[in-house]
Amino acid sequence: MNLQFYMPTRVIMGDHCIRANASVFASLGKKALIVTGARSARVNGSLDDVTAALTAEKLSYSVFDKVMSNPTIACVYEGAAFAKAEGADFIVAIGGGSPMDAAKGIALLACQDIPEEELFSGRYGKSVLPMAFVPTTAGTGSEVTQYSILTNDRAETKTSIAAPILFPTVAFLDARYTEGLSAATAINTAVDALSHSVEGTLSVKANPITNNLAAESIRAIAGCFGPLKKKKLSPDERERLLYASTLGGMVIAHTGTTAVHSMGYSLTYFRQIDHGRANGLLLAAFLKYVEQKEPALIASVLTPMGFSAVGQLEEVLASLLGEKESISRDEFERYSSIAITAKNIANCAVVPTREDLLHIYLTSFAE
Amino acid sequence: MNLQFYMPTRVIMGDHCIRANASVFASLGKKALIVTGARSARVNGSLDDVTAALTAEKLSYSVFDKVMSNPTIACVYEGAAFAKAEGADFIVAIGGGSPMDAAKGIALLACQDIPEEELFSGRYGKSVLPMAFVPTTAGTGSEVTQYSILTNDRAETKTSIAAPILFPTVAFLDARYTEGLSAATAINTAVDALSHSVEGTLSVKANPITNNLAAESIRAIAGCFGPLKKKKLSPDERERLLYASTLGGMVIAHTGTTAVHSMGYSLTYFRQIDHGRANGLLLAAFLKYVEQKEPALIASVLTPMGFSAVGQLEEVLASLLGEKESISRDEFERYSSIAITAKNIANCAVVPTREDLLHIYLTSFAE
Repeated sequence: MNLQFYMPTRVIMGDHCIRANASVFASLGKKALIVTGARSARVNGSLDDVTAALTAEKLSYSVFDKVMSNPTIACVYEGAAFAKAEGADFIVAIGGGSPMDAAKGIALLACQDIPEEELFSGRYGKSVLPMAFVPTTAGTGSEVTQYSILTNDRAETKTSIAAPILFPTVAFLDARYTEGLSAATAINTAVDALSHSVEGTLSVKANPITNNLAAESIRAIAGCFGPLKKKKLSPDERERLLYASTLGGMVIAHTGTTAVHSMGYSLTYFRQIDHGRANGLLLAAFLKYVEQKEPALIASVLTPMGFSAVGQLEEVLASLLGEKESISRDEFERYSSIAITAKNIANCAVVPTREDLLHIYLTSFAE
Repeated sequence: MNLQFYMPTRVIMGDHCIRANASVFASLGKKALIVTGARSARVNGSLDDVTAALTAEKLSYSVFDKVMSNPTIACVYEGAAFAKAEGADFIVAIGGGSPMDAAKGIALLACQDIPEEELFSGRYGKSVLPMAFVPTTAGTGSEVTQYSILTNDRAETKTSIAAPILFPTVAFLDARYTEGLSAATAINTAVDALSHSVEGTLSVKANPITNNLAAESIRAIAGCFGPLKKKKLSPDERERLLYASTLGGMVIAHTGTTAVHSMGYSLTYFRQIDHGRANGLLLAAFLKYVEQKEPALIASVLTPMGFSAVGQLEEVLASLLGEKESISRDEFERYSSIAITAKNIANCAVVPTREDLLHIYLTSFAE
């Protein structure tokens, strides 16, 4: 058994956990840069909780609220310049995957001068601003990963900065912030989290610890399939989804993602399909592909759902995700050529060829 | 769901993992103090692997090999003075729980002047020597906990220093080092690990993540009950026990232990009964006690063993642990009075009274 486990982020979960643990911020620094999007953190109460906690600890802060969906490289450089100009010595990220992923890049670039062409090189120094992360969706798991995934126009896809120094110091999980999410966002993010735990199990880097965390995460999400379909989640269900998405993050921090993510990035880059939805549209076809060679592996992701066949998951995803986008074969040819170059392809327990990817795309979007 | 999860120790598991990851030592410092016992690390190959890795990285080292079983406070102060005199800037601990627990105290006292009467106060500064831990038994889990458990003659029991700064930076798990363990040590340490995962599940601080890790750990250990009874463990089984003991450590790092440990310490302190054996002798009676008020909790620890009644575990433990020591009621009266003052008593999902503890002692040692 060759196994590595490394999860340095302190996870603190519970209603009102930020105000109850305000002193944690004081251990990170003196002045925070709060990294967030334009709106949601102001609406769901998370920004108020963070600023109240910072104020209670007599810490100052500036706000960088320019992070867009699928954040760009330019956004991260802009945020880092702002952090330096403001003299921030730690970062508080609030939001979904976009602000959290951007915040990691900002924390890195605020401490290290890395030219854009070196940004995805993996060769970084040791310095980084300490980070506290506050997820306000239950999907990405970015609060417990070392990945910053950015839109990379040169490569026409999303590319990740990955480095152990990018693990946040602390993650605050308060499911109250997910209460106002639209039904579509609740579904897309839950499907994203599911995809993390499923793909993590199908990764060559999976180990018994990550497989246990993944199974627990899958169980928790599948327990919410019904409420997600009815578009009615109780506070307890929202909390379980947040818990599950953080577990999914712990999983992919070790395993990485697989072909589903590599393929999904083209759907997001070229067609602006939401990230979680993109994964969900491809997931069942990928599982069927893997099942041909590794049926036991597929059983190990279906069992925690209470399912015995991929078709059952396929039906659930179809009903959650609704009508599929119409995309031409030519486009899928192009996406397949891009996805096959992604490093996560080699991560799959069954490594697909470009033709396999094309087949998965076509099957996923068949009428 | 109020949940905290914090496991900053990097776990690296696999045969020959120390030599394969020698560069990790270079990230910790320039000069190591190797903390170990007098003999076993020299016999099982672990000391050779560590010194070879240090040498390969051009790091120097001194050896402090004076740690006895159930290490004393004096031993820890002596080791810290030696670390300072030698100019060590990181610690490598090799051994069972005794060298590992002593090493944490040494790492702390080498950096902070703490008078003996303040040693268990919990009030410490931030500085500590970085630590790499190499368990050579599969029991204690100390390689992934923040506890240093020392013999405390003032309190006539074992007492723990507990502080987040005491988490080792890295734990190397190589099950080859457990190959030469005596059958009794293999059994006692496995029973200790089992006790950690069982007690962790019965702790008021248990959470869904620790419960999952505990169930996985219990499953792995129970899978080795047969080989342990036959006193014949394969390399794969020894590895599973090491894996399980590390998971048990991750569990108690969050949950602490409960009355079984509090009670077991008197058996060790006054009667020199091995720590793991002491826990094992008390475990079944404690489970029967808890079962009266929390049957579902007991089911949750029995199910991963494949058992439906505490009696089944009781039989296994009886056959593993053999003839029980003869201890008088008067002694148990004294032990109960000591154990009831332990802070871990309040940690139990069902909090026992002193009379309950006496009853558990008497039942455990009944003919």
